[in-house]
Amino acid sequence: MKKKNPEYLARLRSAMKERGIDAVVIENTDPHQSEIAPVHWRGLEWLTGFEGVNGVNGTVVVTAKDALCWTDSRYFIQAEEQLQGTGFSMMKEDGPEAVDLIDWLVENLNEGQTVALDGMTFSVSYAQRIEQECKDNGIIFRTDFDPFEKIYPERPAKPMNKLFVHDESLVGETVDSKMDKLMTEVKAELANSILLSSLDDIAWATNLRTTNDIPYSPIFVSYLYVDDSKRILFVEDEKLTDDVRNHLKKYSIELKPYEEVVKFVGELPKDRRLLLDPMKTARTIYDNVACTPVFGGAGVARLKSIKNPTMLGNIDIAMEKDGIALIKFFRYVEENAPSGKLTEVGLGKLVRSLRLADPSCVDESFHPIIGWNAHGALAHYEATEETDFTIEGNGLLVVDSGGQYTFGTTDITRTILIGTATEEQKRDFTLVLKGHMALANIKFPEGTRGTQLDVLARQYIWSDGKAYYHGTGHGVGFFINCHEGPQAIRLNDVPAPLEPGMITSDEPGIYLEGRYGIRTENLLVVEPWKTTEFGPFYQFRTVTLFPYDKRLIDLSLLSEEEIEWINNYHKMVYDRLSPLVDEEEKAWLAEKTSPISK
Amino acid sequence: MKKKNPEYLARLRSAMKERGIDAVVIENTDPHQSEIAPVHWRGLEWLTGFEGVNGVNGTVVVTAKDALCWTDSRYFIQAEEQLQGTGFSMMKEDGPEAVDLIDWLVENLNEGQTVALDGMTFSVSYAQRIEQECKDNGIIFRTDFDPFEKIYPERPAKPMNKLFVHDESLVGETVDSKMDKLMTEVKAELANSILLSSLDDIAWATNLRTTNDIPYSPIFVSYLYVDDSKRILFVEDEKLTDDVRNHLKKYSIELKPYEEVVKFVGELPKDRRLLLDPMKTARTIYDNVACTPVFGGAGVARLKSIKNPTMLGNIDIAMEKDGIALIKFFRYVEENAPSGKLTEVGLGKLVRSLRLADPSCVDESFHPIIGWNAHGALAHYEATEETDFTIEGNGLLVVDSGGQYTFGTTDITRTILIGTATEEQKRDFTLVLKGHMALANIKFPEGTRGTQLDVLARQYIWSDGKAYYHGTGHGVGFFINCHEGPQAIRLNDVPAPLEPGMITSDEPGIYLEGRYGIRTENLLVVEPWKTTEFGPFYQFRTVTLFPYDKRLIDLSLLSEEEIEWINNYHKMVYDRLSPLVDEEEKAWLAEKTSPISK
Repeated sequence: MKKKNPEYLARLRSAMKERGIDAVVIENTDPHQSEIAPVHWRGLEWLTGFEGVNGVNGTVVVTAKDALCWTDSRYFIQAEEQLQGTGFSMMKEDGPEAVDLIDWLVENLNEGQTVALDGMTFSVSYAQRIEQECKDNGIIFRTDFDPFEKIYPERPAKPMNKLFVHDESLVGETVDSKMDKLMTEVKAELANSILLSSLDDIAWATNLRTTNDIPYSPIFVSYLYVDDSKRILFVEDEKLTDDVRNHLKKYSIELKPYEEVVKFVGELPKDRRLLLDPMKTARTIYDNVACTPVFGGAGVARLKSIKNPTMLGNIDIAMEKDGIALIKFFRYVEENAPSGKLTEVGLGKLVRSLRLADPSCVDESFHPIIGWNAHGALAHYEATEETDFTIEGNGLLVVDSGGQYTFGTTDITRTILIGTATEEQKRDFTLVLKGHMALANIKFPEGTRGTQLDVLARQYIWSDGKAYYHGTGHGVGFFINCHEGPQAIRLNDVPAPLEPGMITSDEPGIYLEGRYGIRTENLLVVEPWKTTEFGPFYQFRTVTLFPYDKRLIDLSLLSEEEIEWINNYHKMVYDRLSPLVDEEEKAWLAEKTSPISK
Repeated sequence: MKKKNPEYLARLRSAMKERGIDAVVIENTDPHQSEIAPVHWRGLEWLTGFEGVNGVNGTVVVTAKDALCWTDSRYFIQAEEQLQGTGFSMMKEDGPEAVDLIDWLVENLNEGQTVALDGMTFSVSYAQRIEQECKDNGIIFRTDFDPFEKIYPERPAKPMNKLFVHDESLVGETVDSKMDKLMTEVKAELANSILLSSLDDIAWATNLRTTNDIPYSPIFVSYLYVDDSKRILFVEDEKLTDDVRNHLKKYSIELKPYEEVVKFVGELPKDRRLLLDPMKTARTIYDNVACTPVFGGAGVARLKSIKNPTMLGNIDIAMEKDGIALIKFFRYVEENAPSGKLTEVGLGKLVRSLRLADPSCVDESFHPIIGWNAHGALAHYEATEETDFTIEGNGLLVVDSGGQYTFGTTDITRTILIGTATEEQKRDFTLVLKGHMALANIKFPEGTRGTQLDVLARQYIWSDGKAYYHGTGHGVGFFINCHEGPQAIRLNDVPAPLEPGMITSDEPGIYLEGRYGIRTENLLVVEPWKTTEFGPFYQFRTVTLFPYDKRLIDLSLLSEEEIEWINNYHKMVYDRLSPLVDEEEKAWLAEKTSPISK
């Protein structure tokens, strides 16, 4: 943890005073509205001490009197603790004590006072909401204040990692083909050009990747402009290799320095109708657009989410590589748990090194969540040296982890037993598994949204008086972000339907505070099932390859069909993974995947 | 069917010309945005010949050149036919050939031309959308044109049926108590007064009813104003009896003539913040409000939807009365079907007369849907003399009907076999029944929306490559409208959660065009189940009492739990209804409800 320094807040206030600013709003994100931003843009974490490996969800408001940091319920305990001694107080953005940040602003500022923010790190949409409320209340709104410019001398540089080409043989589609689809999308929205700000969209469109610009995701800092005759990538020269330059040349993609994007949109010919996603585009960029802006572009996320047959074939390879690493990992855990020396942090390092042993795995796809007993009950737990549990005695170990393979992105959760299980643990594990299978088994007509299917995974858990609050399924990218839209299987409604070629996780859970957690997660591919007089129907194909812990299954709660499903899945896991491992591992896997019966 | 008269259109055009109007928009509804309007306000049906007993969903646009009538897919065939020879053409408001009415208007009118409508029959919301688009396109927008004023001499009068008091012993709540809840709702929305336009809200709040103002619903034409010190009912004097006057006096409800509401809101003191539902309030009323209007009021629908224990007890009585009528009806059908003389229209009359034989049944709750074979495949089929089928040969008969009892509103669908069934019919019937049971059985946490549960009813049908497109469950009023909000169990998301005391239908179906339809419908009450560390959980209690046709069940598709559920339900039906019928009926019911087993 960095040292807390309340002096930073004093510096900020004096910079505000100098510029005549009464309140500043700061988001913990970059000009691309990335879920995790490069450290260069995470000044909020430096300022407040509220920080994490994966970044944190925080929004700060500072006035002469108040210094507040909003966050969501996942972070309440962490933020409360980390903010101590920094001069900041925590504000809740969800739950019963939630306070709306914009409401707070207009209630605590007077007419004629000034609110400022850095228009490069606020989306058009969010800035617009703040601006409107300010306007309605006679408050001056400015977007020209970078709060860290003068007060943060040790600010890390922008990432300068080298790009590489994600080979066409792995991706199954040329950049030309993607650009054509992109322009079809642009024209469907009555525009004739597009500026992509979202880094995963750009990585998808250019077949380029990097490592370490952003942890756990191979995307890179850039903008991409496309129209019928021009393709321009805004990226730092330092990030380019000859290979990448040749690739860009081959697809007629011109290069411009990253910082030039603002000037560029300011000089676009008047006849351009420039498609911008208001949720992803920085307000400052929008303010500088010299031609007609058109809001839209949600269709790009859809294009990226639909994987072609080459990608789907490669994901099967990635899953085999992942399965091999997991066999080694879980065998190690099983053999060494009785020693009482395994720790959550240690296992996190182990699972990373086992995945990265494969040359096609360039990173993990997120920081692994390894939770022993009570820590397993924290759905988003991140073990640190301070919190680390030693695995000892009886209990449940939740392991949620994944890899960024050039063959695809993986994300799997297994809950395993160490020692002996209680009846309640078996019951809970089985209820989670029943929901996990019910979702994997459903057939559904074209147009079905994830939200409609969500209850299938929850029904058995609810019928036992239990519940989980996270989503059941998120979209998964292909060697891009582990979380991607537009579809999702959640409690709240998400309008994008599930379409063939999309990948979703299937991860119900039960979390009993202070006791244990259970989560079971596979990735599923949406694929066509059949077309009837009622139109096309789809189904899921499970692509993740690793056995469920049979010792935790309460057979009395399963139907014959469910038992058959598990046995079929385990047979597939054995058939696919056993040729790829050594004899000892093969024997272990045979035992783990042997049929169950009542 | 009324005579078609293209002369009506000519009359309208000349009235438009006289007033300098280039386009008129006409909706088929009343100043209360009723789902079915009194005939006085259904001039659209007179004008276009597009009409039905239950009213029709239509919106008309007339210009000097065009005469168009928009409707939805339920009515495409009917409208196409009925509009012939009237000068009107049909436009689709849903499906792949849908044209947006407002888009059509702005594309077909020029800057400076005038669009007019009757601000009394358009909601604030809809009128606002039209006005905004007109404004953006330089088109003049007026709300002062009643298209029927001068051209429709035979226009029926407003309904003048006598009101009666819905007894407190049946309702379980005084008007004072309801007014208190209403004012709590008003204050929660930062208002201090409310004008109710929605007729079911007014009937709920005043414990008053009538018959025949609107077919199938005991609500009456009126407005209701409430603040902390005043309660005013705007209703025609002719509708009042001494009994009703005493009731109103008891609860300090003043009377004003119906038509005076516009003048009244125009004279409200400036300090009033008047809560108005923009979806339910007429534009003209809003335009006349002299104080501060506050948009909101959705909470009133929620108050109405939550039935108290007295109501729930009475619904059980209504269900018994309904069950008795249905035993007589289905016995008659079974005995007389072999004669080959039964018809859909005849059975519709029979089911009506059997229900109305009970003195507490004042009307049906909707026009019964009686569909034999291919007609059963039309989910909203309304048998007429022209379409009437004779029930002959083998097949399936869908009977969807309900009653308005002073003890509550009923709505039930049963599909029964006449003659012998095919394997496919049995399979389809069983898939529908499985979904119907899965929904009825679910337990769910507080906050769950109907949309989240919808798939439970659809899952088995989908897994057979079939689908239905209507909602699975609508809210049902208590001796008010058979369809009410705010909750619904549908494909599209409806934000209101299911709360204890709400009633919903549970009615999955399968419709095979030109062949047969199957629908099975019960009403369910939401009730508390238990509270756990995860908060309160709810469950459904089935209140409808009538057996499923066992001859149509394919036992091989049912689990032991499902068979047990059916047997338990049938036992309850027998136990509750058998003491209320004669010996022959009792024997018939015993056979219909005897246990099934594999």
